Amino acid sequence: MNKVILLKNRPKGRPSLEDFEFTEEEKPKPKDGEILLKTKYVSVDPYLRGRMRDEKSYIAPFEVGKPLESGIIAEVLESNNKNFHKGDFVNGMLQWKEFQTSNGNGLNKVDGEKAPLKAYLGVLGLTGITAYLGLEKIGKPKKGETLLVSGAAGAVGSVVGQIGKIKGCRVVGIAGSDEKIDRIQEKFGFDAGINYRTTDNMKKAIAAACPDGVDVYFDNVGGEILDAALANMNKYGRVVNCGAISLYNKKETPTGPRVETTLIKKSIMMQGFTVRDFVKDFGPAQNQLAKWMEQDKLSYLETVVEGFENIPQAFIDLFDGKNKGKMIVMV
Amino acid sequence: MNKVILLKNRPKGRPSLEDFEFTEEEKPKPKDGEILLKTKYVSVDPYLRGRMRDEKSYIAPFEVGKPLESGIIAEVLESNNKNFHKGDFVNGMLQWKEFQTSNGNGLNKVDGEKAPLKAYLGVLGLTGITAYLGLEKIGKPKKGETLLVSGAAGAVGSVVGQIGKIKGCRVVGIAGSDEKIDRIQEKFGFDAGINYRTTDNMKKAIAAACPDGVDVYFDNVGGEILDAALANMNKYGRVVNCGAISLYNKKETPTGPRVETTLIKKSIMMQGFTVRDFVKDFGPAQNQLAKWMEQDKLSYLETVVEGFENIPQAFIDLFDGKNKGKMIVMV
Repeated sequence: MNKVILLKNRPKGRPSLEDFEFTEEEKPKPKDGEILLKTKYVSVDPYLRGRMRDEKSYIAPFEVGKPLESGIIAEVLESNNKNFHKGDFVNGMLQWKEFQTSNGNGLNKVDGEKAPLKAYLGVLGLTGITAYLGLEKIGKPKKGETLLVSGAAGAVGSVVGQIGKIKGCRVVGIAGSDEKIDRIQEKFGFDAGINYRTTDNMKKAIAAACPDGVDVYFDNVGGEILDAALANMNKYGRVVNCGAISLYNKKETPTGPRVETTLIKKSIMMQGFTVRDFVKDFGPAQNQLAKWMEQDKLSYLETVVEGFENIPQAFIDLFDGKNKGKMIVMV
Repeated sequence: MNKVILLKNRPKGRPSLEDFEFTEEEKPKPKDGEILLKTKYVSVDPYLRGRMRDEKSYIAPFEVGKPLESGIIAEVLESNNKNFHKGDFVNGMLQWKEFQTSNGNGLNKVDGEKAPLKAYLGVLGLTGITAYLGLEKIGKPKKGETLLVSGAAGAVGSVVGQIGKIKGCRVVGIAGSDEKIDRIQEKFGFDAGINYRTTDNMKKAIAAACPDGVDVYFDNVGGEILDAALANMNKYGRVVNCGAISLYNKKETPTGPRVETTLIKKSIMMQGFTVRDFVKDFGPAQNQLAKWMEQDKLSYLETVVEGFENIPQAFIDLFDGKNKGKMIVMV
């Protein structure tokens, strides 16, 4: 039999285990042109929370009673498709199933010799590519500028900060524990860090950590931390709206200070994006990230949880910041 | 003697005549290298409200007890500067005085033969240039796209809409009276208009007037109209934050729905600007606007108030939408 995880209910506020349903189905057989895949590593990411809402977005919402999906590394067990061979490993958006078939569309082969397979879900995968392209295409940091990053110890934020250092910026990170603040400075080379959980006045704390103001703010969290960052932006500052994890579980439309007057006064740009906007740049981005890895300029951390049945809990734990870097489930 | 208008108090909320003080001083004499100027036309603009606050912005705040200033067309009465001659007309940021001296820095000569002098404060001046460069540099409308403009009957908005039509867009305007809605359609060629004062649900009204969604929103007002526009933006939409007149007189920090989730979901860019950001493009912008005027592609309206002593009231009247197009005081 084949284990499958379905969306049972659309979560109200913070997701819980009750929102997921475990079921079993027949192990599928690949038809002509198809391959049979065995799930090896499953990426769980904050943005999946958005797909659990019944709302129009850049990607269709998950359907209640249907399998969830995310970035997955899988092994090809059987192939009726000339582009794939038994023993290949592939990366793509796949369903939360132990086994599944695919016609190969949207799957990329990954080379476990060049980098650990898991890295293709993290620093060499959509996570690293999100960090790289969000910064390159929108933030456009220049040497000597100050780059502020929220979710700085996370999978995206830690890569953003390291790229900022490679580009010659002063890099300041915001994260939610002293341990994370130590980590971003010691392991990822950030110049300074702010623990927002122990800071009363984020606006002042950012001003103190960024004495020349903020030129680029790479935002993974939204909400009040974004407000505090905006108050510290320099003229011609750029805000990269990558994520808003602080708002994803809100039941009501969140409100806050209006931004338009600040944007006008300081000629600030705010731009939201999703990594799929830049799909034609994925190849060069992955090559650049791989090169920096080889040169030991890019470190990363992973939290690896074992067991297919732990995928939902690993996802829920993201909202408590229990992950160190990329959260991955090894099946 | 020489009449002068000073900022008496920083306005609390809506400006009133009590915030201005009339005084007299000796008529100045130009020194070596200086010119003596007589004020002819004074531009009053919503953005001046921002300079009346004691806040850091793109331009220094006005000082209490000091003369106000704005865009002014003046006549050269005497010249000790080889770049200017008696009888020339100049355009620049000048003080609210009947007579003043200048070393000529920041002043541009204007040609009353090519266009009416007043036009250099409006469609050929910072107003028209703001419309043109905000749209060209940030909004980047493409043929076939939908352009939504607020403050559509105003000096900037009416030019934005006409340029949108020149570029081949569907252009929809928002304004505050049925008369203005008629005007933007009949005089300025907008495809549709929404009177926000008689519309209960702006979000639905915009959806109805923009059946293909909004690609570019040129915002002169901010606040709830911006919220309604954002709700109707298409993927990759661009918001040009030019002004926020609905917020300028607020005493408390205005709040509203947070934008970051919307920006991310639809890969929307919002960018604030002030026309000075693009100062090196002023010449080509003015040339393009003059060419369209010659080709009868660009209409404009002015409200001309007479009398130096009416400058403050003309400014205050902007916040009640009493102007048709550019508000100018003829001295």
